[in-house]
Amino acid sequence: MRSGYDTEELIAALATPWGESALAVIRTSGTGSIEKVASVFKGNKDITKLPGYSLTFGMLRDGEKAVDQVVLGIYRAPKSYTGEDMVEIFCHGSLPGIQAVMELLHKAGFRDSQPGEFTMRSFLNGKVDLTKAEAVNELILSKSRQAQVLALDRLSGSIFDAIDQAKHFLADILAAVEIQLDYAEDEADPAAGFDMEKLDKAADILSRLAATYQVGKLYKEGIRIALAGRTNAGKSKLFNLFLKEDRSIVSDIKGTTRDYIESSVAVKGIPAVLIDTAGFRSSDDPVEAEGIRRSNMVIENADIILYLVDGSEGLTPEDEAFIKEHPCIPLWNKIDKTDAAAPEGFVPISAATGAGFDGLEELIYTKAMGSRRLDTGEAVIDSQRQKDLIDRSLDAIGKVKIGMAAQMPLDVVAVDLEEAVNALGELTGEITSSDILENMFSRFCVGK
Amino acid sequence: MRSGYDTEELIAALATPWGESALAVIRTSGTGSIEKVASVFKGNKDITKLPGYSLTFGMLRDGEKAVDQVVLGIYRAPKSYTGEDMVEIFCHGSLPGIQAVMELLHKAGFRDSQPGEFTMRSFLNGKVDLTKAEAVNELILSKSRQAQVLALDRLSGSIFDAIDQAKHFLADILAAVEIQLDYAEDEADPAAGFDMEKLDKAADILSRLAATYQVGKLYKEGIRIALAGRTNAGKSKLFNLFLKEDRSIVSDIKGTTRDYIESSVAVKGIPAVLIDTAGFRSSDDPVEAEGIRRSNMVIENADIILYLVDGSEGLTPEDEAFIKEHPCIPLWNKIDKTDAAAPEGFVPISAATGAGFDGLEELIYTKAMGSRRLDTGEAVIDSQRQKDLIDRSLDAIGKVKIGMAAQMPLDVVAVDLEEAVNALGELTGEITSSDILENMFSRFCVGK
Repeated sequence: MRSGYDTEELIAALATPWGESALAVIRTSGTGSIEKVASVFKGNKDITKLPGYSLTFGMLRDGEKAVDQVVLGIYRAPKSYTGEDMVEIFCHGSLPGIQAVMELLHKAGFRDSQPGEFTMRSFLNGKVDLTKAEAVNELILSKSRQAQVLALDRLSGSIFDAIDQAKHFLADILAAVEIQLDYAEDEADPAAGFDMEKLDKAADILSRLAATYQVGKLYKEGIRIALAGRTNAGKSKLFNLFLKEDRSIVSDIKGTTRDYIESSVAVKGIPAVLIDTAGFRSSDDPVEAEGIRRSNMVIENADIILYLVDGSEGLTPEDEAFIKEHPCIPLWNKIDKTDAAAPEGFVPISAATGAGFDGLEELIYTKAMGSRRLDTGEAVIDSQRQKDLIDRSLDAIGKVKIGMAAQMPLDVVAVDLEEAVNALGELTGEITSSDILENMFSRFCVGK
Repeated sequence: MRSGYDTEELIAALATPWGESALAVIRTSGTGSIEKVASVFKGNKDITKLPGYSLTFGMLRDGEKAVDQVVLGIYRAPKSYTGEDMVEIFCHGSLPGIQAVMELLHKAGFRDSQPGEFTMRSFLNGKVDLTKAEAVNELILSKSRQAQVLALDRLSGSIFDAIDQAKHFLADILAAVEIQLDYAEDEADPAAGFDMEKLDKAADILSRLAATYQVGKLYKEGIRIALAGRTNAGKSKLFNLFLKEDRSIVSDIKGTTRDYIESSVAVKGIPAVLIDTAGFRSSDDPVEAEGIRRSNMVIENADIILYLVDGSEGLTPEDEAFIKEHPCIPLWNKIDKTDAAAPEGFVPISAATGAGFDGLEELIYTKAMGSRRLDTGEAVIDSQRQKDLIDRSLDAIGKVKIGMAAQMPLDVVAVDLEEAVNALGELTGEITSSDILENMFSRFCVGK
């Protein structure tokens, strides 16, 4: 399918991150991979005789030289990730050890795999369609639990099933139309036998999928939330509250500059980058002015601005000016320290005690989702490629409808129908050019 | 053996580094671990019925909620790393996914493991002695190929075998002495039946092992090499040549400060940190002066200083002053550009073409090793704990010899003999207090 791509080559890759750890996994795949690994392995068992899905313990050896004590996982075609014979090597997570194993594999005839090459082989060998293949990468790169769940759902075939159903409806209509064209050229009514209901069903499935893209993109890319407010309004406390409550995925706080710090959190499942800007005030000091300029840039690039006011001190003209100039969520902080009621439009919270935080998260979620919805159990797409192809199919379906309404000749309508089917074939990978494949898989992790 | 330690608890840990990647491995261990994982897993097969050393594919589930598609590796006691029932979970290397699996395991009754806890269980269950247990960690943390090979050798039992042999010699003598004490109290000659040859053999084995510690430590801790010389003497070129030739383990160059950069390399198997200092000259500029101060500190802390002179420009008074003041290896660089012969004591090289580099590495190796030797196939220790215990045993053997020479009563000699045996028992872990274990394993990786 992919011009010039040789599925006969043996590939190997480190599938776990490069770092010192208890274990590392090196994956290999290709016809003959079990025999090649056997040539550098000495254990209690002859791995060329082991059945698939078995493990065995022993030593990787370069001639007489021990390279590492390992456990090997044996998989036999077609029952493996790639659909080919595979050996997974579980070795010690030692940096020179990993290098030594990779060099041994090179000697034995394996080459380093390209990013996504294991999954591409899985696709080429018919183990997965393109929607599942893309889901693998989306799963790995997911930035929140909800995003991971959505990708897992796609990996389990939710998108594929929906697309497949729509395609079947369209293919049925196309088949009927073609029979009509072949055998009934003198038929007076081109609409006779044309199943408009099926066309509507296909369009409905595709429209619903297309509509999920905005949600999918939101969960994939996340939002940027800036914390602003005068010095001592409680920005750092609120920042830490987000980290604690959302059990952030990346718990390290990266101090990018001394002007602001940012961290990854998730707000009700939506991945978010939270940025704590420096307190600002106009200044003649050039260094401080530069800090303020950067803070302002952060604020302007944020999707949501949380503006904290110290409720125990009340609103200052500075606060009022900011709120007037920026589309923000104003927060009335320190409600544990004051009896002063929050002004209208302000969210009363206490960053110190956590009071009001749930409501704030709810508000951020609503603002981020806008008119979008995430229905339980619904397949959600987050791939621009998939969205474009669904749109192409929907456009073609639209033309079919117009053609039928205008009583256009059936052979003209058939061209659009075919286009609607083909777009979906390209989406799942039944019809795909080598360029698209190459481009798609190159964005994957190595070893996947 | 370890007071208060409950081997019945189920433990789990991420055994691969925390980062996005194709795969992550989560390890679990403990009696009943297979059943507990089975309670949150749904695959084609019932894992509670699978034999050890088998793999199976399926979905981890939290009730109805899919958590991740995984492959499970099943190990049954005693044939596993820990000697207990174990399940290794091969899941997607997604950060929220890994968190989700760990949370699912907590719910199912697993607790997070302590560093080294898997290996400690392996020791407690009699799978490995302490020298092999320590070798696991030394292997993972090894910083050069040679260091990894030495640790792998220890993991395969080279230290254990030597210690065991020495201990058997000593135990034989002790047994004979005890029989003599029990049954022959009126014996005139205490030396009768005392096998001095065996004592010498034991002492010989232990002395040879103790002597390897300096080499072991060198390979474990490595050396610091500073590159010094005037601006444009070729320091950066030589730095890059080291990186290229030694295929550095950590290929990222960490720019620690703008004053110097450092990188990890290996010189003929010895791990080395290579530091490129700023070119120096006296300066009144306070910023530059600070840079020079730091460069000087780096140079003073280095084990080996390579001082580059630009051979095409010849020696300057500044060069001569440095070489006189510092114990360094002076290099006559740019021999590809000049016909001027290197002055006596200088190593002629070309950092640009690589000429002379092999000889330089040989020289660094010789300097680092000093009078130490690394004999092929010899067991090498790098653990301070092991060295101390071998010394304790050797001291006791020394006292035995003195006692025998002085014709001391056999029961006095027996006390020292016992001490010599016990020190070795402590070394392999036959006799070990819980404090020592706790302290030793706490320095391990989590998941190992």
